Amino acid sequence: MPDARRYFDLPSPFAMKRGGELIGAKLAYETWGTLNAARDNACFILTGLSPSAHVASNADDPSHGWWEEMVGPGKPIDTNRWFVICANTLGSCKGSTGPASINPATGEIYRLDFPDLTLEDVANASYELVRGLGIERLACLIGNSMGGMSALAYLVLHPDGAHTHISISTAPQAQPFAIAIRSLQREAIRLDPNWKQGHYDDEHYPEAGMSIARKLGVITYRSAMEWVGRFARIRLDSEERPEEPFAYEFQVESYLAGHARRFVRSFDPNSYLYLSRASDWFDIAEYGGGNVAAALKRIRIERALVIGVSTDILFPLTQQEQIAGALKDAGAGVDFVALDSPQGHDAFLVDIERFGAAIARFLASL
Amino acid sequence: MPDARRYFDLPSPFAMKRGGELIGAKLAYETWGTLNAARDNACFILTGLSPSAHVASNADDPSHGWWEEMVGPGKPIDTNRWFVICANTLGSCKGSTGPASINPATGEIYRLDFPDLTLEDVANASYELVRGLGIERLACLIGNSMGGMSALAYLVLHPDGAHTHISISTAPQAQPFAIAIRSLQREAIRLDPNWKQGHYDDEHYPEAGMSIARKLGVITYRSAMEWVGRFARIRLDSEERPEEPFAYEFQVESYLAGHARRFVRSFDPNSYLYLSRASDWFDIAEYGGGNVAAALKRIRIERALVIGVSTDILFPLTQQEQIAGALKDAGAGVDFVALDSPQGHDAFLVDIERFGAAIARFLASL
Repeated sequence: MPDARRYFDLPSPFAMKRGGELIGAKLAYETWGTLNAARDNACFILTGLSPSAHVASNADDPSHGWWEEMVGPGKPIDTNRWFVICANTLGSCKGSTGPASINPATGEIYRLDFPDLTLEDVANASYELVRGLGIERLACLIGNSMGGMSALAYLVLHPDGAHTHISISTAPQAQPFAIAIRSLQREAIRLDPNWKQGHYDDEHYPEAGMSIARKLGVITYRSAMEWVGRFARIRLDSEERPEEPFAYEFQVESYLAGHARRFVRSFDPNSYLYLSRASDWFDIAEYGGGNVAAALKRIRIERALVIGVSTDILFPLTQQEQIAGALKDAGAGVDFVALDSPQGHDAFLVDIERFGAAIARFLASL
Repeated sequence: MPDARRYFDLPSPFAMKRGGELIGAKLAYETWGTLNAARDNACFILTGLSPSAHVASNADDPSHGWWEEMVGPGKPIDTNRWFVICANTLGSCKGSTGPASINPATGEIYRLDFPDLTLEDVANASYELVRGLGIERLACLIGNSMGGMSALAYLVLHPDGAHTHISISTAPQAQPFAIAIRSLQREAIRLDPNWKQGHYDDEHYPEAGMSIARKLGVITYRSAMEWVGRFARIRLDSEERPEEPFAYEFQVESYLAGHARRFVRSFDPNSYLYLSRASDWFDIAEYGGGNVAAALKRIRIERALVIGVSTDILFPLTQQEQIAGALKDAGAGVDFVALDSPQGHDAFLVDIERFGAAIARFLASL
């Protein structure tokens, strides 16, 4: 299978925010475009909870990436101009060190012995990678969803880390509705008898719990409005319905089942638990004496683009407004774009027309 | 334990919409106030998925009911004037016949042998009770949440069934977002190994599945906005946190756990599955050639009050507007009230100030 990943060795030991350290940890990453001689054209993308570093196709891996239409030559994040980097998140399972990696202290898989993970750790690991690539200051730090939270941590902990920032459908702190959803996703996994306190294997795997978690995710990533138009009350043909009591009957149910099927075995359940909890823990206000605006005042960027979507129930528009306002107060020139994409939180992945236009306009103006 | 329930024997056999019939089925019900000589002061309340018939305290059962502040002497539904009736829903488990009842054909608990249940069956059973009490036409039929759907079925199937109607936070048909949520709740129960295709008992009971289902319910019954104000990021004291990996840490998580704990053993899981699916199946458009407005045109009521809440994500305001518009087209005088209660779908249970005022005003004007 083609693979464009390279691996960056994090400083060892790598100290974690809540205690503990990682020995011999690494980040998997991919790049697009060319770093110029001045090393000042680098854009770094911090991802949501589940994506890999494979943002888009490239020479070493021609398969479509998770933001294929956004990154490439002539695309909104134009790799003719920008050197684009994306890493698999620390704690994830797509090449970077996480709970599914071998613990060098024991020779066994970390599982729940992986130290507490925070988005500050994700940010610090990313910062080490950027510095390791010889980049003093990013041209632009881009973060969406969980990656947007990691990006705020990056900029608060490393205030000169970037000239500009693109913040997409994210939050300066986890709010209780999002915490409730994520807590329930974690509970579904933990209650699955096959989770076994993290000691599942391929044969005894928490499929049911992961399936419920993913479906709940997809429900909150999209919007009710989109689904009225897309699925309405369309039923499955009878031969598409499983033969069991209370089987699926509506298209929306098989849509969710398809999402779950594709996800369940492709993401490590313990990684999911760690990253989900890291999102709940995230509160940038910790760096501002309990005040979000005071924390974001530390950030020294020149310009920012903040994008939110009116139909996003997980990261509501009010939170994007809060970020935009605080960055403005911190002295950045801020473009705030509120989109009415019907696709909810996931719009940045699918409504490339609206998102691409906003991002292209911002980057072209730099 | 005090008990105000009386029992009404449904016609036997009682034919169900999707086939099958019930033998010797009954509805548990309670009443408040006095039926006048003309028998024209009766209000019937159709409930949401889980409530019992105990709407409010009365002489035989002084315990608080689920709508205690709404029903009683001098309260918005004033029992000095109105004779109020509420039944436990057919298919539920609070005294009425449902999947947890004994199947007279076998002497065993019905479980999944209970016939397919629809909200039309709920409506028809309620209609039989009303007629059985010697009431030709209700002064007002009141329905909230699932009960609002049952009420529309009641009025379409029995167009002269009521002079007036109060419709609260409901839907003329189940939309895909609500179907997705309910489907996932059912899946959590079905995936619980203790569900055993409906053959659980007290010792092996699908606690985990019911807990997830209830928590997901509560998440969708309230609103993100309410929780920002109510829970913010307040953490539990460390002694309140369970000692287990990924234990609860935030107040919102223990709030959900409390809701689940109170519900899990107090509602029959099979009943839950039947009533949940009945809600997904509900589509009043079936009676109008696929058109909601055409179906509601059958209803012959004089006046209606339609109330919705802007923060309700399960039964959005657009659906209340649709009901109000269609009832107006059908010739009823319609008061449409859009409330901005922060409590979401559950507002009718807790924002008594706003709901009570609207209902009192409407009933006083009759």
